[in-house]
Amino acid sequence: MTKLNFDLDSYLVPKRNQVDAALQELLKSTQNPSRIRDAMTYSLMAGGKRIRPVLCIAAAEAVGGHAEDVIKTACALEMVHTYSLIHDDLPAMDNDDLRRGKPTCHIAFDEATAILAGDALLTLAFQVLSSIDSDLQDHASKWLCVIHSISLAAGYQGMIGGQMEDMASEGILLTLDNLKEMHALKTGALINASVYSGAMLGGANSKQIKCLEQYAKNIGLAFQVVDDILNVEGDPEVMGKAAGTDKIRRKSTYPSLMGMKQSKEFAKQLVNTALQALDNFDKRSDPLRAIAWYIIERNR
Amino acid sequence: MTKLNFDLDSYLVPKRNQVDAALQELLKSTQNPSRIRDAMTYSLMAGGKRIRPVLCIAAAEAVGGHAEDVIKTACALEMVHTYSLIHDDLPAMDNDDLRRGKPTCHIAFDEATAILAGDALLTLAFQVLSSIDSDLQDHASKWLCVIHSISLAAGYQGMIGGQMEDMASEGILLTLDNLKEMHALKTGALINASVYSGAMLGGANSKQIKCLEQYAKNIGLAFQVVDDILNVEGDPEVMGKAAGTDKIRRKSTYPSLMGMKQSKEFAKQLVNTALQALDNFDKRSDPLRAIAWYIIERNR
Repeated sequence: MTKLNFDLDSYLVPKRNQVDAALQELLKSTQNPSRIRDAMTYSLMAGGKRIRPVLCIAAAEAVGGHAEDVIKTACALEMVHTYSLIHDDLPAMDNDDLRRGKPTCHIAFDEATAILAGDALLTLAFQVLSSIDSDLQDHASKWLCVIHSISLAAGYQGMIGGQMEDMASEGILLTLDNLKEMHALKTGALINASVYSGAMLGGANSKQIKCLEQYAKNIGLAFQVVDDILNVEGDPEVMGKAAGTDKIRRKSTYPSLMGMKQSKEFAKQLVNTALQALDNFDKRSDPLRAIAWYIIERNR
Repeated sequence: MTKLNFDLDSYLVPKRNQVDAALQELLKSTQNPSRIRDAMTYSLMAGGKRIRPVLCIAAAEAVGGHAEDVIKTACALEMVHTYSLIHDDLPAMDNDDLRRGKPTCHIAFDEATAILAGDALLTLAFQVLSSIDSDLQDHASKWLCVIHSISLAAGYQGMIGGQMEDMASEGILLTLDNLKEMHALKTGALINASVYSGAMLGGANSKQIKCLEQYAKNIGLAFQVVDDILNVEGDPEVMGKAAGTDKIRRKSTYPSLMGMKQSKEFAKQLVNTALQALDNFDKRSDPLRAIAWYIIERNR
């Protein structure tokens, strides 16, 4: 695969800024400051990579849509993602003190507040997705589709199911198929929903949606393979979280099951397949291509 | 106020059965058995009073709608309610071992599973509300309205905000206004949304919706006043949960702030106001009237 001549940063930075501004707006437009809103804001604005919102916007643009059409959905996806991080970090779950280089929500606030802040972000996502603008009435059934897709991806048949499997698998040697299945649920489902909802609201036809689903499935898995690699080789300072934790928790990972060299090769293959799925798309899908590259080149 | 000649049980029992059957169907139609689904089912089917689903159905029927039109919404409301109970019972929150006469979810399963089962029920509620039937496409914007109303009621400006205030108020002497405000958020908001969404989907006009909101607001508050009374005078065996816990936690309650006699009088006044709001409704609103009576006469 030949490297793309596209400056991803000059795409990502303004998109991230746009998402951050919209998130701030959604949080502050609503109510007086309160401890729960502080906790929600703390975790939501803690400097995430905004992969899901950017994927949603880039998928919309790849089929001729505009960032403005999907910005609410992009924000809702980041809220769902952040809620899942807050809950996964809780003492009863992964018991992590550090996230994105900062104390996790239950450390910065307290456990009860963290549980409720997660609940509130998940709920706010659906509030945002169902808020009716003048332009939205005509497309109400499309928005129902988006809500359905995100709720399916986030729920017990998606992300939550994956987290259950992940917890159950600590100390157990998984097969490679089990591991892929678990990641397809835990991280893959919401990445798929990000691309799907962006494409749908951007006006994709069914053939384009099929290709973009193929793209999403492969980069989702690649993302997880690289996460496992970074957990072994990454720099905790750069990542903003501890390394080596998978080994300590005796988790099955791609490096532990396939070896490090093969894991890197596997990630490359997945990205290659993702790029092939975009073969019939024009230059407007370059950001999606660049994101696929970024996934294997990132160091955090 | 004259007592209504209406046999509530002959209304409630078949409605509850209808809701229970629909809930079972929604849970089992989706996936193979799993620990997370077991935990969701355990709490959802633990014999709740189904107040919110029944209110939703009764509100729809009061304006000429049918239970079938709102059964999904009724189920979603019960999922949201049950999720909030599971999370409120967690050790980091109210730390309750008993709920509806059974071990709470984190006791019967474990803390991580309880957190995720709550998350999954909340998410499933929105999945159910956005699932598109053939008949639904035409009314998509109505369903968006329902989703919006329930997410607002459940979120940090509603139920979650109320739980935050409730936790912050332990050991602090609240004013009566603070107490009302806290309950309006914690329990009132979702009861309002139950009545509102039933009325909306049942085809209510704006004047009817206004009256039903008045009804809901008053029975919601009455419900909480009676809860506080039962916490002092109720029989733990009948209630399926411990009594006297408010005093142990030094919580401000209606009996503690107004006295027991005045609290009972206040509950009656609220129910009376709720009944007056239904003055222009015909016999089809008798179930709503009977539910208002039931709220002050219940012993669990």
